[in-house]
Amino acid sequence: MERTEISEYGEFGLIRHLTKDLKIVQPSTKKGVGDDCAVMAFGDAKSENRVLMTTDMLLEGIHFNLEYVPLKHLGYKAAVVNFSDIYAMNGTPTQLTVSLGISKRFSVEDIEALYAGIRMACERYNVDLVGGDTCASMTGLTISITCLGTAKADEIVYRDGAKLNDLICVSGNLGTAYMGLQLLERERLANAEQPDFAGKEYLLERQLKPEARRDILEALRKADVKPTAMMDVSDGLSSELLHICTQSKVGCCVYEDKLPIDFEAASLAEEMNLNIVTCALNGGEDYELLFTCSLDDYEKLIPIDDLYIIGHITKPEYGCNLIGRNGEELELKAQGWHAFDKAHS
Amino acid sequence: MERTEISEYGEFGLIRHLTKDLKIVQPSTKKGVGDDCAVMAFGDAKSENRVLMTTDMLLEGIHFNLEYVPLKHLGYKAAVVNFSDIYAMNGTPTQLTVSLGISKRFSVEDIEALYAGIRMACERYNVDLVGGDTCASMTGLTISITCLGTAKADEIVYRDGAKLNDLICVSGNLGTAYMGLQLLERERLANAEQPDFAGKEYLLERQLKPEARRDILEALRKADVKPTAMMDVSDGLSSELLHICTQSKVGCCVYEDKLPIDFEAASLAEEMNLNIVTCALNGGEDYELLFTCSLDDYEKLIPIDDLYIIGHITKPEYGCNLIGRNGEELELKAQGWHAFDKAHS
Repeated sequence: MERTEISEYGEFGLIRHLTKDLKIVQPSTKKGVGDDCAVMAFGDAKSENRVLMTTDMLLEGIHFNLEYVPLKHLGYKAAVVNFSDIYAMNGTPTQLTVSLGISKRFSVEDIEALYAGIRMACERYNVDLVGGDTCASMTGLTISITCLGTAKADEIVYRDGAKLNDLICVSGNLGTAYMGLQLLERERLANAEQPDFAGKEYLLERQLKPEARRDILEALRKADVKPTAMMDVSDGLSSELLHICTQSKVGCCVYEDKLPIDFEAASLAEEMNLNIVTCALNGGEDYELLFTCSLDDYEKLIPIDDLYIIGHITKPEYGCNLIGRNGEELELKAQGWHAFDKAHS
Repeated sequence: MERTEISEYGEFGLIRHLTKDLKIVQPSTKKGVGDDCAVMAFGDAKSENRVLMTTDMLLEGIHFNLEYVPLKHLGYKAAVVNFSDIYAMNGTPTQLTVSLGISKRFSVEDIEALYAGIRMACERYNVDLVGGDTCASMTGLTISITCLGTAKADEIVYRDGAKLNDLICVSGNLGTAYMGLQLLERERLANAEQPDFAGKEYLLERQLKPEARRDILEALRKADVKPTAMMDVSDGLSSELLHICTQSKVGCCVYEDKLPIDFEAASLAEEMNLNIVTCALNGGEDYELLFTCSLDDYEKLIPIDDLYIIGHITKPEYGCNLIGRNGEELELKAQGWHAFDKAHS
């Protein structure tokens, strides 16, 4: 029998392959596979209420390393990354379910710590934990979280709405979570009894305890700005920009000197001989919001705190490019995700 | 630091422990943890539309053994057991998401087979596959499925509505899926090149490709019968009856000679020196519907095909008992789930 390795497809290729030609038969399904969330309409025919649904699986050894990730932080992050997907559609997260696969290595106290983190995230974001599944695992810890959220039909922002000349904006900073991970890995390999994190606490926080940018959506609403396309930055800016441009059938141009980069992150990158721009483009796990909006909204965007305009949308022929500090053009590529290469059988 | 083994709690004990004192803050949450599904109201204030949500995680080595479970069947079953939870609330499944953790052992063709099974189940039950997550795993296959469904508020049947003198009914037959598993295990251990399944195909089908009892709900609706309490039989009749009785604050009395038992299953049990009544009470994975309904509905129930009245609800003081063929009383106990005992670290 033929055998095609999954690494030949990669994550996105495999998902595209498995979900192509999916039929939609339920009238309540408004948007299936292909965005940060699925969108459903469960109300009466005239109702504008929509339900958003997203799901994420985290596996030990792939997505987290318990040598340096405390279980409480892991629980918090596992919940927040789901909330981030709901916010990325301009929705509000409301309910979540938690499924856990737990090996004998873990004690009741361990799982309590994990749950404490999940509960803390739920409290901070006003989300109800409404169900789940808990089962034994032969190997390590598996966490699968599904989150529901709500939005009005006309509030929802998809990935495919970016238009020619739209501004490209991003919140917070990029590459910082990745540098936090490099720091944790470096100290782990150094096997130091007292890892040296002094002055770098912010990098750790970005990696271990990210927040979803609910505040940015509130600021946009207050400023009466509705993004034309939006995603959260989980796999890295390049990868997400390519998603928006492909789905919107446009190109883009972003400027290296506009990319928001944290000082601590840049300083550690230099120390570790890493290119911080590459980290910002491909690092991932920032959970910042990336969105496009009309050029007409420019004046409204300027006063918003922690928000950066990094480029604009172009014609599709132009492709997706980064303009370097010296004016050179570099094609954006999705480095993203190579986990299948390192996975063992 | 203190260390409590998870096996001291067991599955249900652990879930109870982790989810006690959960606060509900979203007005849309109508029922959280504690039934087959969570129940949400996302419509306008007057709307009777409800959304049901359930989730199940299946782990290789715990829930399935790929030595004898074909991947297509596994996909089908993984979807159907979720639909069964929605039916167990008297709802209709509508959407599902699929998250997969896949190790390098699996090829694209393997995952295509798994997906083909999931898609086949979705087609048969009119459910849309609307999203998911696919990621690399260090070890084996992990499947996490979340399913949404719909129901009107007054149609939903919870576990806690059983009343004194209500009839206890169950569909199909019990213990058959368990006997199918015993057969598969026997042939696996015998290491036969041509396993001998002749005449026992039904047992295999019950284990490998169960169906959710949508037909029973349709028959009940047609007969104008609304159950007072309902669950699906996934962990075994005893365990489910105890859930209904505990949550409804009642006792129950079921009769050994009323338990629906398949002839093939009984014959294999005799061959393998197993007590088929024990298998029927504790086998699990039958995915039949167990429900209670008013004594007034007795006449309406009789004509319904493949439905069996096995006992009645008593006062709580009586406890939960099985009346044996010779009139002896046996207390029902939840054997259920011991997977934590056998899981490795």
